[in-house]
Amino acid sequence: MHEFTATDHQLMARALRLAERGAWTTRPNPMVGCVIAHGGEVVGEGFHQRAGGPHAEVFALRQAGARARGATAYVTLEPCAHYGRTPPCALALIEAGVARVVAAMGDPFPDVDGGGFALLRQAGIEVAVGLMADRARALNRGFLSRIERGRPLVRVKLAASLDGRTAMASGESKWITGEAARADVQRWRARAGAILTGAATVLADDPALTARPEAGDFLPPLRVVLDARLRTLACARVREGDAATLYLHDPALAAPVLQGAEFAAAPLLADGRFDLAAVMALLAARGINEVHVEAGPTLCGALLRAGLADELLLYMAPLLMGEGARPLLAGLGIGRMAQAWPLEVADLRMVGGDLRLLLRPDPR
Amino acid sequence: MHEFTATDHQLMARALRLAERGAWTTRPNPMVGCVIAHGGEVVGEGFHQRAGGPHAEVFALRQAGARARGATAYVTLEPCAHYGRTPPCALALIEAGVARVVAAMGDPFPDVDGGGFALLRQAGIEVAVGLMADRARALNRGFLSRIERGRPLVRVKLAASLDGRTAMASGESKWITGEAARADVQRWRARAGAILTGAATVLADDPALTARPEAGDFLPPLRVVLDARLRTLACARVREGDAATLYLHDPALAAPVLQGAEFAAAPLLADGRFDLAAVMALLAARGINEVHVEAGPTLCGALLRAGLADELLLYMAPLLMGEGARPLLAGLGIGRMAQAWPLEVADLRMVGGDLRLLLRPDPR
Repeated sequence: MHEFTATDHQLMARALRLAERGAWTTRPNPMVGCVIAHGGEVVGEGFHQRAGGPHAEVFALRQAGARARGATAYVTLEPCAHYGRTPPCALALIEAGVARVVAAMGDPFPDVDGGGFALLRQAGIEVAVGLMADRARALNRGFLSRIERGRPLVRVKLAASLDGRTAMASGESKWITGEAARADVQRWRARAGAILTGAATVLADDPALTARPEAGDFLPPLRVVLDARLRTLACARVREGDAATLYLHDPALAAPVLQGAEFAAAPLLADGRFDLAAVMALLAARGINEVHVEAGPTLCGALLRAGLADELLLYMAPLLMGEGARPLLAGLGIGRMAQAWPLEVADLRMVGGDLRLLLRPDPR
Repeated sequence: MHEFTATDHQLMARALRLAERGAWTTRPNPMVGCVIAHGGEVVGEGFHQRAGGPHAEVFALRQAGARARGATAYVTLEPCAHYGRTPPCALALIEAGVARVVAAMGDPFPDVDGGGFALLRQAGIEVAVGLMADRARALNRGFLSRIERGRPLVRVKLAASLDGRTAMASGESKWITGEAARADVQRWRARAGAILTGAATVLADDPALTARPEAGDFLPPLRVVLDARLRTLACARVREGDAATLYLHDPALAAPVLQGAEFAAAPLLADGRFDLAAVMALLAARGINEVHVEAGPTLCGALLRAGLADELLLYMAPLLMGEGARPLLAGLGIGRMAQAWPLEVADLRMVGGDLRLLLRPDPR
C-alpha cells in the first residue's frame, strides 16, 4: 500500500470534482480529472470534456507548462497508453517531466488496463495507485459497468407518493412531484447515455423523453423504446428534437422506415416479453454507459426482478394518494416478508418539497 | 416587541432543552424549563419533573439561592399565579428578588393565562414575553392542544416499506423496520399520555402496547382500545403490566368487570363507527395531552379523514413488499390527484437503516 498525505487526498478530491464536470459530455468515455501540483500548489488542472477531444491530462499539462517538471500529477483514472483519437497521455506526462503520478484507479479498458502505469514506471516516474478509489469507481460506475460487465448501469427513476403510489387508478399522475424534483430528473437524464421506456408509457403519455437541464452543455441521450410489436409509432413526440430514437422490436417483425427513428431487433423470451439482459447487452455494444429508465410499474418491476436495476432513483412527494391508486412496481412476486426486496439507501435528501432516495439492491 | 440579545437566545435555548427532559414525566402538566443568570453566567437551572412536584422555577431558585437577587430568569412558559399543588412560582420569583423575567410564551391554562406576568409586573419586575415562542409551543403542542382545542394532539405512527406497504396480504408484518426504529417508537410511546389502538389490531396482534424505552423514568401511558362491541377481551396482553387499560365501547353495551381494565362508553356515528372527535374529547377530559396511535389502515385512515391526525410518524424501511401487500392507509376516498392529501415534512432522518418522517397535514 502507498502512503498518501492529506495534500494528496485534497488534490485527488479536487481532481474528482473536476472529472464530474464532464458528466454530461464525455460519453462513451469515462469522466477524468487531473490536477498537477508542487506540494499543495496547483500549477495546472483539467478534465475530459468530450470524446475525441483532449484528455484531462492534456488540459492540465497545457496549463502547467514548464512548471509540470518535477510535479505530481493527480489523475482520477489511469492515463491512457494507446494512440486513439489523441496521443497517449502517459507519454505526455513523461515528456513534461512529471516526477510522480497519483491515480485513483486503473483503467480496465482493454487498450489501457495497466499499460499507462507501465509506461510511466519504465520512464522512472513514481506511480501510486488507489487513492480514493471508491469515489473514482462511483463516479464512472456506468463506464465501468459497460467495460467490466458488458452492460450499462441501469438506473430506474420512479416518482411516487409517500404511500407508494405512482398514479391514480384512472392513470392520472400530473403532477406528483414538484418543480424542483422534475428539474432534478432532467439533470439525471442529461448524464445518461440512453433514456429507456416501454410501449405502455409511450401510448399512455406520449412523452418526449429528451433531457432538458436548465443550463450546461450536454449530449442528447439516445431514446430507447421497448416496443415488441411496434404499436407506438403513431406517438411522435418521442422522435421529435435532436436526440436519436431507437425502437427495439420483435425479430419476427420487419423494421419500417421512419424519419427520425432507428430500429433494431432484440430477442424475446418465451412469454413474449423482451430478454432484458439481451437488451442491455445491445445497448452496451452501442457504447451506452448509463441507462436511465422512465417506465411503468411492469417494466420497472421486470428490470428489478431480472437483477438488472442497479439503482432506483425514487422521488417521493409528501402526499397520500390512497389505496386505490396504482402501485410503485408490479410483478415482484413477493408473498412473504422473507421475499421482500431489501434496498440500500445510498443517498437521501430533500429536493424542493420532495424526498429523493438513491437506492441500490442490497446484496444481503 | 422586545429586543432580545444573543445571550437571551442562548439561555432560553438552554431552558428549552431542560424543559424537554420532563417529556416522559410531567403529564398532564406542560414541560417547563428555567434558567437563572446574571448576564451569561448561569446561577441556577431546573425543569419540571413530575406533576405535583416542584415547578422548574423552584428548582432553579433553590440552586441560585441568594444569587437570584437582581438576576434574569428565563422560563419557557409563564410562571404560575395560583395555589395548586405547589405555591405560585410568580411569588417565588418576586421573593427571590429576580430583576427580569424572560418568558417564551404565556400559559393558556385558565388558572394562569396572564396572571403570572401580571403579578411579576406589579412587583416591578421587567417582563419580556415571546422569545423563541415557536419552539416553546412546539415543545408543549400536546398540552396546548388539550387546553386550547379541548382535544389531545394525535400522532399516528405508521411503519411501511418504501412502496407504502404495511403488511403482506396474509397479515405478516414482522419485522418491516429495524431494531433502531422499534426502539425509537418506544421513546415516542413514553412521551404520550395514551397509546390508542383498534379492535382489529388487538385481535390480529395481541399487542402489549406498553412503553419500553431503554432507559429513563417515565409514566406508563394509558392504553386505549377502541372496541365498540367489546370483542377483544380474550386478548389479555393489552391488560398486562403497570399501565392502565381503557376500553371504549358502544353506549348500548354494559361494561363488564375485568381485572386491570376500565371501561367507558363513547358515542358511535350512524355507520356504527366511533365518533372519533368525541373519543378525543373524552381523552382530553382525562388529562391526556398526546395520543400515540398504533392501529391498522382503517382506523388510521379514519383519523386522518376526520381531520384528527395532527402528525404522522412514518417509518419507512428500505424494502419493497410488492403490489399485493397491504396499503398504508385505507378509506381516504381519493379518486383524483386534486384530492390527494398534502403533507408537510416537519422532520426527516435516518433511524438505523430506516427513514423516519414526521409529517403534518399541509393546510394548503
